[in-house]
This record gives sequence, C-alpha cells and structure tokens, in this order.
Amino acid sequence: MKEDRKESVRKSGIYEKETGNPDGERKNQMQENVCAPETEAVLQRIRYDEKGLVPAVVQDEETKQVLMLAYMNEESLRRTLCTGTTWFYSRSRQALWNKGETSGHFQYVSKVSYDCDCDTILVIARQKGAACHTGNFTCFYRDFPQMK
Amino acid sequence: MKEDRKESVRKSGIYEKETGNPDGERKNQMQENVCAPETEAVLQRIRYDEKGLVPAVVQDEETKQVLMLAYMNEESLRRTLCTGTTWFYSRSRQALWNKGETSGHFQYVSKVSYDCDCDTILVIARQKGAACHTGNFTCFYRDFPQMK
Repeated sequence: MKEDRKESVRKSGIYEKETGNPDGERKNQMQENVCAPETEAVLQRIRYDEKGLVPAVVQDEETKQVLMLAYMNEESLRRTLCTGTTWFYSRSRQALWNKGETSGHFQYVSKVSYDCDCDTILVIARQKGAACHTGNFTCFYRDFPQMK
Repeated sequence: MKEDRKESVRKSGIYEKETGNPDGERKNQMQENVCAPETEAVLQRIRYDEKGLVPAVVQDEETKQVLMLAYMNEESLRRTLCTGTTWFYSRSRQALWNKGETSGHFQYVSKVSYDCDCDTILVIARQKGAACHTGNFTCFYRDFPQMK
C-alpha cells in the first residue's frame, strides 16, 4: 500500500499536503528535509502571507531570462534549499510540487536570494528543457504592444 | 485648493485611491491614462487576485538583474503602460505609487510582458539609481547560505 502511494507520488510529482496524515512516511520525509543550521536560521526570517505562501521568481542562470513566478510555503522553500531542484506549492491542487518531476524539465538551483522585506524569493537556476507548460522556454513569452 | 492637493500629491508621490472622490480632476487623470486600443485589449486578459492585484517583477534592462517584486492593480498597470515609468499599488498605504517620484530613482520601462496564466507581469526597465529603499541596486541583495 505504501509502495503504491510512493509510486503514484513519484509519477504525478504531487505530494500530499503536509498537514494531512502525519504517518511514519511523512516523518521520514520531514527528517530528510531539515537543512543545515545556518540555512534554517535564515529560513526563520522569511515572511509568509496569510495563506502561508511567499512568491518565488525563477531566473535562468545562463540566459538571465525571468522564467516564471510560483508560490512556495515553508516546506517547499526548505526542499528547494535542501534538494537542489525547485519545489512549489500549488494553490489550486493544495499540494507540494517538484517542478520537472513529470516533464523532466527540472530547474537546478544555484542560488536562492530573498528581498529587503523578506517576503519574496528569487531562485537562480539552470533550466532543463522549458519552464513553461506551453513549451516556451519562459512563461513570459507575450508582450504588451510596444509603447510610444 | 486643487492646486494645493496637486502639489501635495506631486511631493509625496502618493495618489489618492482611485475609488475615492470621482471629481473633475480624477476624470482628467483617467482620460490621460487610457492606453491605445490594442493595449487596452491586452489589458483585458490580465487576471487579478481577489484583492484586484497582480504581482509584477521588475528586471533591469542592462544588467538583467531582478530588481524587485511589487503589486499592481489595473490602474497602476495602465499607468505603467501609458507613462513609461513604473506604477504600483501599495497594499499597506492602499494607494497608487509612482516608483521614483520621491527618491528620483525612476524605472524607465522598455517592455512589459505577462505570463502564460495572465496572472504575473514582468517589466523590463532601465533603473535610475537604486531599486531598493536600502540603497542597494536590487532588493535581492541577500542570499541563503551556499547549498552543498
């Protein structure tokens, strides 16, 4: 049964919401995702909104293009810092989400910064394949008409 | 009286919330801030959150650094598109805000893009002075400890 769920999770790239079913498996996941003490200390500075989320901008390391904006909760930020690929929190699915797990288009993280107000995250990453589900390299592939 | 208010507005860089006092002066402001029809058509695609806001990422045109993230309502996005400098909506002050009006550190807009979901804005701009109120060029001047 546990194996089935693990397999389903692996294929979908969607993990169960952290607040649900605190069973042994989840405990192990949590233990794997405690960062180094100096990282945990900085994590405490981050200010989440009333939904427990913070916007995260992802920028491609090589081309410097801004690729996307998604939302992180504390656990997805911790996993991003610990695992070296980006994790987000899907507001529509209410689930953690490891970008690339289904498409193979992972974002390999090289630097994570936070802004002056500690309420926005900037991830510099090497984008494999395309960031956008449309197949475009960046989600910002459409512009407003040129201004005069 | 009108002159006094205009002068106060000019100095503070803070305009009154758009929903207040729809007097003659505001009408003129609105008329000045209707964009070209093709721009207005694209404006209709943007999806705002339940507070009427959309996150806007600003990237420096020359250095490609991500400078800041702030929030826009429809009117601040329209003014950004029409005036050529960035306008935001301050959630704490509940007011429109022309970045640089008090500090002189304007952002001169060269391109405005929107993402695949039409719920995030990317502004490419030439930053005069510093984007951050701390004096740093970018608001993202602090990093998490280097990952292993």
